Order: sequence, then C-alpha cells, then structure tokens
Amino acid sequence: MLFAAESRTMGKVFVNIGLSLDGYMAPDGMTIENWERPEHKNWGAKWGSLMAWIINQQYFRDNLKLGPGGETGVVNDMLRKTTERIGANIMGKRMFDQGARSWPEEAPFHTPVYVLTHEKREAWVRPGGTTFYFVNDGPERALELARESAGARDVRIAGGADVVQQYLNLGVVEELEIALAPVLFCGGRRLFENLGEGVSQFRIDKVVDGPHATHLRYVRK
Amino acid sequence: MLFAAESRTMGKVFVNIGLSLDGYMAPDGMTIENWERPEHKNWGAKWGSLMAWIINQQYFRDNLKLGPGGETGVVNDMLRKTTERIGANIMGKRMFDQGARSWPEEAPFHTPVYVLTHEKREAWVRPGGTTFYFVNDGPERALELARESAGARDVRIAGGADVVQQYLNLGVVEELEIALAPVLFCGGRRLFENLGEGVSQFRIDKVVDGPHATHLRYVRK
Repeated sequence: MLFAAESRTMGKVFVNIGLSLDGYMAPDGMTIENWERPEHKNWGAKWGSLMAWIINQQYFRDNLKLGPGGETGVVNDMLRKTTERIGANIMGKRMFDQGARSWPEEAPFHTPVYVLTHEKREAWVRPGGTTFYFVNDGPERALELARESAGARDVRIAGGADVVQQYLNLGVVEELEIALAPVLFCGGRRLFENLGEGVSQFRIDKVVDGPHATHLRYVRK
Repeated sequence: MLFAAESRTMGKVFVNIGLSLDGYMAPDGMTIENWERPEHKNWGAKWGSLMAWIINQQYFRDNLKLGPGGETGVVNDMLRKTTERIGANIMGKRMFDQGARSWPEEAPFHTPVYVLTHEKREAWVRPGGTTFYFVNDGPERALELARESAGARDVRIAGGADVVQQYLNLGVVEELEIALAPVLFCGGRRLFENLGEGVSQFRIDKVVDGPHATHLRYVRK
C-alpha cells in the first residue's frame, strides 16, 4: 500500500532532448567562446537544422518571446503537454551558461531548475517562475531536490549530453524522448557514450512523424 | 537529354541497415573469434534485440531458410520491396566473413555482392543467384562494378559501419534506410563516425513505426 501511495504521488524522471541523426546534441564549435560567431565551423546553421522542428511552433515561440504566430498542430500540442508535465528541470553548467546568454529575462522553464556545477552560487530567481539552483553535491542529490520540488509532477533531464549520460548510468531515467532531426553534424557532443552496466533498457512507446524531426518516445522496460 | 536517359537507366545507391538506439551496428564482443560464444559480453542477446523486428518476418524467414510461418504485414511488405529493388550489394570483409559462417548455402542476396577487401580471391558462386566478387581497388571501383551489374535496379550498401562511412564520405548515398531498434549496446561498432565534409545532407522521407524497430527512411537533399 505504501508503494501504491508513493507511485501515485511521485512523478516520473524523463529525458527530453533534440538529437542529430548522427547522435550529437550539439555541433562541434558551439561553445561560449564562439557564441557570437555562428559561422565558426558552421555551428549556427547546424544548430538551426536541429531546431527546425521547434522554432516555428506557436508554444515554443510564445515561451521564448520570439513573436506571435506559429504552427498549432500535433507537434505543438506535444510540446505543450511535455512542458506542462514538468515540475522541475535538471541541467548541466554548460547548458545553463549558454542558455543564460540566449533565454529571455523570463527564462522558459517556469519551474525550479537544478544546475549541476562545481561553482558555488546563490539561487537565481527569474521572473515567470523559473529559479535556478546550483547544486554541488552530484546528480543524485540534484534529483532528490528536483523530485521534492516537482511533487506529483515530473522531473525533466534537459541536458547536456554528459548530464543525460550520468542519469542513464544511474538507471533512474524512466522515459526517453528524442526529437531526431535529419541532419549530420559529423562531430560535436555525443549523446550516447560513456554508458555502462547501470543503464536501463527501453521499449518503443510512441513515434510522431514530423517533417523536420522524428519524435521518438521510449519507456523503461 | 543524355542526362534524362541516364537517370532513367541508372539505379539508386542506398544504405539499408539495422542500428541500436545508441548508434551501433554491432555490439562489442561480436567478432569471428567469439562467434561460438554469444554469451561473451552478452553480444548474442544484444544482437538478438537488434534483429527482433526482422526475425519473425515471413520474407526474412523464407530467405534465410529459418522455417515456415512468420508475419506478413507492413514490415514484411517493406522488406520484400527493399529486397526486390536491389540489383547488387556491397559489403565489407568483416560482414562477409561473419555472414559466410551464418548464411545458408543459398546465400540470402540473389544478386552479385561486391566485397571490399585487400584479400585476392576468385569469385565465389552460391546457388540461388548470389555471387561474391572480391574487390581490391577501393569503394569507388566496387560501386562502379555494382552499378554495372545492377543496371536499372539499385545498389545497396549493406555494411558494416566502416563501409557505410566510406560511401557517405564519397557523397554517393542517395537514400539512407535505418531500422532503429530500442536497445542500448553501450559499445560496439558505431555507424556515424569518421564523417567529413564530403557527406551529403538528408531529409526525412518516410517513417514506419513498428513495435521492435522504427524504420527511418531519408533521401539526399
């Protein structure tokens, strides 16, 4: 009974990321040092191809303050549902640093966000419900904190690649959602590497076939 | 007019392979030395997961002499159509060596098969229309020979990973068909690596959503 009660009140842990066909979460050359030079190793165009499926979705545009309009079909609905189920996000320091230079003042999470880092820093409160907490005690502690804030809602592992790898290796990822874009980066930050025996296996749960990405959803076996 | 005439008579070059979710064509430990020890690094079970979508298809079972019966739905139809369009296959020496220990006497290709190798060897004729030719002059020459034998039919790049990479780098791959199985190998022979500037980009052409694999079809842009 205790177990049943717990499973009613505890959310899922899920990964939701974009991936190039050749398995990279970010192209070579996409670093803070080259943030203002998207022509460096052509990273800007490559990143654009990865984001092509999302950039014109109404929900995404609204959330990122990119202006009115946008598509409102199946993919947009999926995007809204995914965002609404999230009670807390977890991300790495690199993703945070890059995002901090790109997100609008009202950061697009509207939940607590736990940033895995060695840096000690006070919580950073943004308008619109996003607060960044900087966690120095490793991925398990960050997940504990994220679960606590999320309550019955779900915890999303947002990236980057090394953070996803850490949680896959802990075997705690229950759902794996990948927007697979038909672009070859030929280098960059790989999602699937450094994986070992702790990794769970998954089954196919759902596939949504869009023109700019294939949305693959897997559930832990 | 010459171009139009040529494009009517010349087949396509396409890749058709199985891939683990984490991007491997074969698991770690799956080598000729360990062929009789599928428990070595658990390669047999991993390979089984990769092949789960195909092993019960009627067309595949019939072709590999695995016995009667099998599924006859959308995936089976796709498998038949794919096989029937092939006028010649190209593969690497490792794939050939492993296959030579596994295929029935009537090898399952029923076309000329060009094997990229440094080994000098006479053509090996099998019953049922498969003849293996051993090509020592590199991937471009193998493709030339394969195109000649295929005529208006298509040339399939069958694998392994290094052979697919060579043809991707030559920019000659027009269609890329991947059966993406929901298994994490955590190591093995990666499909997408060693790729450089010669690589083409692709668009999504079709997705077939099966229970044991997602069938992704891409066409060169």
